[in-house]
Amino acid sequence: MIMLNFNPEVDQGKLAEILASIRGDAMGGWVDLPKNILIDEILSIKEAAKKITEEAEYLVCIGIGGSYLGHRAIIEALSPKSDVKIVYAGNSLSQRELNRVLTEVGDADFSVLVISKSGTTLEPKVAFEAFKKKLVEKYGEQASSRIYATTDAHKGELHDEAVQNGYTRFIVPDNVGGRYSVLSAVGLLPLAVAGVDIDKLLEGATEMYGDAGIQAAAKYAWLRWMLFERNYDTEVFASFEPSTAYFNEWLKQLFGESEGKGKKGIFPASLIYSTDLHSMGQFMQDGRRNLWETIIDYPTDELNRKVVKAVRAAHSQGGIPVLNIGVPSYDEKGFGELIYFFEMACAISAKLQGVNPFDQPGVEAYKKLLKDGQNGKATL
Amino acid sequence: MIMLNFNPEVDQGKLAEILASIRGDAMGGWVDLPKNILIDEILSIKEAAKKITEEAEYLVCIGIGGSYLGHRAIIEALSPKSDVKIVYAGNSLSQRELNRVLTEVGDADFSVLVISKSGTTLEPKVAFEAFKKKLVEKYGEQASSRIYATTDAHKGELHDEAVQNGYTRFIVPDNVGGRYSVLSAVGLLPLAVAGVDIDKLLEGATEMYGDAGIQAAAKYAWLRWMLFERNYDTEVFASFEPSTAYFNEWLKQLFGESEGKGKKGIFPASLIYSTDLHSMGQFMQDGRRNLWETIIDYPTDELNRKVVKAVRAAHSQGGIPVLNIGVPSYDEKGFGELIYFFEMACAISAKLQGVNPFDQPGVEAYKKLLKDGQNGKATL
Repeated sequence: MIMLNFNPEVDQGKLAEILASIRGDAMGGWVDLPKNILIDEILSIKEAAKKITEEAEYLVCIGIGGSYLGHRAIIEALSPKSDVKIVYAGNSLSQRELNRVLTEVGDADFSVLVISKSGTTLEPKVAFEAFKKKLVEKYGEQASSRIYATTDAHKGELHDEAVQNGYTRFIVPDNVGGRYSVLSAVGLLPLAVAGVDIDKLLEGATEMYGDAGIQAAAKYAWLRWMLFERNYDTEVFASFEPSTAYFNEWLKQLFGESEGKGKKGIFPASLIYSTDLHSMGQFMQDGRRNLWETIIDYPTDELNRKVVKAVRAAHSQGGIPVLNIGVPSYDEKGFGELIYFFEMACAISAKLQGVNPFDQPGVEAYKKLLKDGQNGKATL
Repeated sequence: MIMLNFNPEVDQGKLAEILASIRGDAMGGWVDLPKNILIDEILSIKEAAKKITEEAEYLVCIGIGGSYLGHRAIIEALSPKSDVKIVYAGNSLSQRELNRVLTEVGDADFSVLVISKSGTTLEPKVAFEAFKKKLVEKYGEQASSRIYATTDAHKGELHDEAVQNGYTRFIVPDNVGGRYSVLSAVGLLPLAVAGVDIDKLLEGATEMYGDAGIQAAAKYAWLRWMLFERNYDTEVFASFEPSTAYFNEWLKQLFGESEGKGKKGIFPASLIYSTDLHSMGQFMQDGRRNLWETIIDYPTDELNRKVVKAVRAAHSQGGIPVLNIGVPSYDEKGFGELIYFFEMACAISAKLQGVNPFDQPGVEAYKKLLKDGQNGKATL
């Protein structure tokens, strides 16, 4: 299980209150995901993954934010073996980027997985249109059989289109927000296609689901809160494994979107060592002292271990708090533990700061501005 | 030329003083790089690039920090066409990462470019040893003819080894530090191999070398300083082109390492939109108001342009200063302008904050701790 190098006192009464309020929240469904996911759903996911592996060289994963960061993070970290190459689209409106992905897929056989609760978010919608066109050009009437949609169970633009055209459907649970959704079909289907052992991932998450796991998450949340109260306002997530850069991006989203509201919030940043020791290392060592460092300490070889130790020593001597989160194994189980640990810690931490961990009013504001601008309703 | 949406008053007397002190600095050689690079050196670089293209499918670029961030940033941004695939090693001590690159190269023909002023930095040294071994196994006595070394002109471990074994040599200028070196052979050789038009890149940099360019850089430096004095302490570099993520990493190094010292410094962070609008967008819109946003505004298609406008409007309404740096063209010339603009702005900005833009005492401290730890001289 995850090991911490810190042990602040947690107010158990307050923790119990917070946990009750998280579980009672309409968006608290992620808490029970590792236990509650149905055998049926896991089987459907594996079946679809098998079909995709047989029919395609590429799976184009279309989604933005919480609909893609989690699974991409795990796939990049583990580089699992698979005959299908996963490529990502619909996470920006850059035509340059969309063309790059269209060119990469080229003439190869491909299938499309579109992940969107509503189906109306502009970025994935634009990419989905482009790849649907390509599918129809290549496969004609068979195109629909290569489209997989993870979306709302009952309603919405993508739901309706999927039902009408007979796409293979998976569900974004009603009570799980995007940034807490990686252990649902949102993440599990692309992970299974990529060759990640999703049973082991869920096993790792389940390990943190019990009281010991919750207590560890609470300790981390409490320490973050104490640091923030002492005017440390920036948290640097540091890792010594280059392939975990996207996992840090997932962390930035999880914490930034959960806590950054009401003019509050700890600013989350990411550094990947050793590269960043030869860049931002200077700032960490000797720059402004408003930040702390949270090292995600993956098991590693002996030489890299020396760097971890040297950095911990150097940065502590430089006067910044260094939190160490020891990961037991660099595999599906380890990442399953990490995901649940951070999700739980983030929800508790936001509650301690007095903000709602599950909404994102600012993102909705931007989406609205963009939509209105598009329809000519506002001049920007 | 680069266009700004801000126009603070620059104290021209102070600017003249700062410029004199930058030009007079022993590490101020980068100021004249775009003009002073010799035709001879450009020709040698192109000749070596041609040889590499003929002999190899892969060029393994070994270097860390300033020895690799700049050229990687431009290569990822421009995706130029080339028959040689560039892969990167030696920027971490992760054995996992090193094995990943060794496996990627596999049985293909390859050459190695090692970039290190001293040759003693641990990360590139370890990777260079691994790839030298692979070269010797594959090419025997011909291995040396496939090694290219960019290093000190006169001395050092790598210099001596290169002379002894007859590697093709290029020079890290004495008066140019790593993070200001991309327009020297450090960056130009890998860029040429990757198919980047280095003449156009230098042309762009030269465009910013004149007084108008310097004034633009000074305006940006002055505004940063004014914001910092008003307690804005975090700068978010934002871009709407996913393939410029590494360019933002280069910016983080340039500013973080130049300014983060003496317990001072503006904390540099990077966001890539739209993805990050669906993650950190919440924080930008409505989180703590200690940050400002510097948008690197590349020319883009109409739809993506709408997003740029919506974001500028939304974040301004949310109460954060939005600086806009308009890039004239998304090509070698545009990036040449950007590089020189940011290098000059960074040097001026550090001087305004009263710190030395060209040293990195903190990084040296880490290197020493690591080295001592390795030789058993310190317990960490």
